[in-house]
Amino acid sequence: MRSREPSPTLREMLGVALAEARAGHQEGGIPIGAALFGPGGELLGRGRNRRVQDGDPSLHAETAAFRAAGRRPHYRDTTMVTTLSPCWYCAGLVRQFGIPRLVVGEADTFPGQHEWLARHGVAVTVLDDETCRDLMATFVREQPQLWNEDIGALADS
Amino acid sequence: MRSREPSPTLREMLGVALAEARAGHQEGGIPIGAALFGPGGELLGRGRNRRVQDGDPSLHAETAAFRAAGRRPHYRDTTMVTTLSPCWYCAGLVRQFGIPRLVVGEADTFPGQHEWLARHGVAVTVLDDETCRDLMATFVREQPQLWNEDIGALADS
Repeated sequence: MRSREPSPTLREMLGVALAEARAGHQEGGIPIGAALFGPGGELLGRGRNRRVQDGDPSLHAETAAFRAAGRRPHYRDTTMVTTLSPCWYCAGLVRQFGIPRLVVGEADTFPGQHEWLARHGVAVTVLDDETCRDLMATFVREQPQLWNEDIGALADS
Repeated sequence: MRSREPSPTLREMLGVALAEARAGHQEGGIPIGAALFGPGGELLGRGRNRRVQDGDPSLHAETAAFRAAGRRPHYRDTTMVTTLSPCWYCAGLVRQFGIPRLVVGEADTFPGQHEWLARHGVAVTVLDDETCRDLMATFVREQPQLWNEDIGALADS
């Protein structure tokens, strides 16, 4: 008889999101990945930012993972894992759909809204992952205009 | 010589979003529509909630209109028009991308986040449109479970 698979650790869950971010990087896209997990740590959906690949500004990593998970009656037992602290758009997704847990790879290269989510009841863990930070920092340095487009930061340029 | 087309009124802009909402209703979907307009009132993108039609929970009306508008360097001169006050997900979109103006058909059938956006600098107009309200009220009454799924309200059921 096979024993039940053990739940993945938070680092292992982040690894799924990071693999998405790396795939995006290799495609010439914005290197941010995310994954949505169920209560036992089973993968529900994974995705990456698709602005460059699909010309689609609506697919940030978190929204891509959420989309990939398909229709669900609720999210009360899910965990959103993302390589980067979520922007307002993605933080709004987490709050609206009542996703109770958020795991963030790093929050240094972008001042995202994970603390706002924590203030509104989301259990937030920031893993302060060096690989996520290096991948993102390199991208922001090399393609600042593309990054600013993705976060709506060109309003005053 | 042709004269330049006059800018549409807010009611005319709402009419585009309402046509999307009605089309969604006829498809058996959630009857919410939206449209993004440029500085002269030109249509940049329009869309409707596609949860039912595409099995896609990530496409609320506002995100569908934003997606349809494609990649843009900024949104500083755009107006988002929606038949219903935006949820956190869609309000986060408006805030993150610096969309400066929001026109809302009605805010009675859903306590959305248009006031939060107004507090953060967005110029908000609520048109209090009876047709939008009737369309949505009928839907919520007839399909409460589908509506709750769309706004993540089934967390405690």
